[in-house]
Amino acid sequence: MDNKGRYAYEGLDRILHEKARLGIMTSLLARPDGLLFNHLKELCNLTDGNLSRHLQVLHQATLIEIFKGYEKKRPQTLVRLTGEGRERFLAYLEELERVVQDAASSARQACSGPTGVPAGWMPA
Amino acid sequence: MDNKGRYAYEGLDRILHEKARLGIMTSLLARPDGLLFNHLKELCNLTDGNLSRHLQVLHQATLIEIFKGYEKKRPQTLVRLTGEGRERFLAYLEELERVVQDAASSARQACSGPTGVPAGWMPA
Repeated sequence: MDNKGRYAYEGLDRILHEKARLGIMTSLLARPDGLLFNHLKELCNLTDGNLSRHLQVLHQATLIEIFKGYEKKRPQTLVRLTGEGRERFLAYLEELERVVQDAASSARQACSGPTGVPAGWMPA
Repeated sequence: MDNKGRYAYEGLDRILHEKARLGIMTSLLARPDGLLFNHLKELCNLTDGNLSRHLQVLHQATLIEIFKGYEKKRPQTLVRLTGEGRERFLAYLEELERVVQDAASSARQACSGPTGVPAGWMPA
């Protein structure tokens, strides 16, 4: 059959294709020097626990680096993308853009809504 | 703090923001009259079991309709978007486009890679 796997989107890496992690990675992409934990938490509207959990997943996948240090004598956590993280996220974003373009083209093709139940077919 | 929740992406509906279901919905968007189960399976590179499971989730959320019928005397299943499914998917796609645009703008801001470990900070 034509178009086998046309809409499979294999490039949508499951680690990156998660709502909260998508926000974290987008925040970090703009800041090669990293972001502090508390700032990231605000930007992504996450609790301490949730942010920690997602950072652990990204860290284990070597997509981010985590540093501990002090700012104004208070302990702080700094998070930033690794080179690999940046590359993998940019590749993921290309696939995401493909989804958006496919869907826009699908929406254009379909000028009208459904035309009623096909004769002889029954709702499941 | 400024920009609270700037990257929270609350509009990324968890039912739609799943790789396989994203493919199914994009396939169906172009076909207001629906697609047969076997065609959808090929387009999205899914097994019978996986496709059935995802269709059930979408059906329970009233995003799709499922019809049973016959074609050339063989039993067939036809799947199509509901009006609500179409509307919700288009709203989801707008949010997805916002992610892509945010990330593109983040990538433009960050001209350079990280500049070395900040003084006094230690890897976690």
